[in-house]
Amino acid sequence: MTENRLTQQIQFLTEIDKLKSVYRQSFLLNQSRNENDAEHSWHLAMMAMILVEHANEEVDITHVMKLVLIHDIIEIDAGDTFAYDEQGYLDKEEREKAAADRIFSILPEDQAKEIRNLWDEFEERVTVEAKFAHAIDRIQPLIHNYYTEGATWRKHQVTKDKVIKRCGVIQDGSKVLWKFAENLIQSAVEKGYLLP
Amino acid sequence: MTENRLTQQIQFLTEIDKLKSVYRQSFLLNQSRNENDAEHSWHLAMMAMILVEHANEEVDITHVMKLVLIHDIIEIDAGDTFAYDEQGYLDKEEREKAAADRIFSILPEDQAKEIRNLWDEFEERVTVEAKFAHAIDRIQPLIHNYYTEGATWRKHQVTKDKVIKRCGVIQDGSKVLWKFAENLIQSAVEKGYLLP
Repeated sequence: MTENRLTQQIQFLTEIDKLKSVYRQSFLLNQSRNENDAEHSWHLAMMAMILVEHANEEVDITHVMKLVLIHDIIEIDAGDTFAYDEQGYLDKEEREKAAADRIFSILPEDQAKEIRNLWDEFEERVTVEAKFAHAIDRIQPLIHNYYTEGATWRKHQVTKDKVIKRCGVIQDGSKVLWKFAENLIQSAVEKGYLLP
Repeated sequence: MTENRLTQQIQFLTEIDKLKSVYRQSFLLNQSRNENDAEHSWHLAMMAMILVEHANEEVDITHVMKLVLIHDIIEIDAGDTFAYDEQGYLDKEEREKAAADRIFSILPEDQAKEIRNLWDEFEERVTVEAKFAHAIDRIQPLIHNYYTEGATWRKHQVTKDKVIKRCGVIQDGSKVLWKFAENLIQSAVEKGYLLP
């Protein structure tokens, strides 16, 4: 029994190694290359740990860390959909649900359900933990863009209103981080990193 | 006050982006490139989450996840010391302590202390959480070596006794995972991935 469970668990854990080869539009801060989903997820977990005091409401940090660690795994099959790619968003939900069905079901049934519930919770953005996890997931690329002088924004000619629309959900998780984000956005426009 | 804390926190969180550019000797399972410390840390956190039932004693999973997420940050300054590099181990402790002093102190004092305590705890390997975190940190590259047909082992002509010596600590954290590891090592020798 244990042996069979362990085999399934190891199979899942080797499968998700593929997340290290799913590249995002964001650049590393040293601009040497694009960031991948696995290291992005690590960064979010560190941000959650360090910034948790700024959540609007008290959150269960374990739960937030789990949400951000697993939230992108479905991109192994579904790929990274760029935040400002309107075409890509048309079938995003369908692609991602199919990916969740395949990848999470490699695990023993109880754990498959646990991880699926976490992913659904992240996507639904209703619990305080999911709201805070989203705030972190949105502010991280914003910080990366700012400190790379708008590398991704300039490449895709992104405008301030699009960033505000996309990042506005930060305030549902943390008003403190949203204030910080607004200042970054304003400064990015002034410095020419982001189109007004 | 909040603003000043937040500035220090963001400074730390941008500093640790450098962990994505610290490369290890392990290869990704698809062998496309070496693995970096940030994605490795994400993988360990996922392994801790999924494999926690196999710990010898009941562990606080939040604590284990924090240990594995932060354990390699010091390598931003100290670099990755290859497990079988005897020369590199001579001044490893000194290099890593200096790195911890510099990097963690970017944070507000209370958080600097918290992260430093976590790192010291990981290094000392006394608590049940640190023992389980080490078990995960040792079994992950073993799995990577096995599923890449001994890529790193063959490159450095590593022998079975060296792997057993290095990985034996897995049993202090999980006898179940150690049994699994022993089987992998035996199979690796039989398949010619690892020198007898």
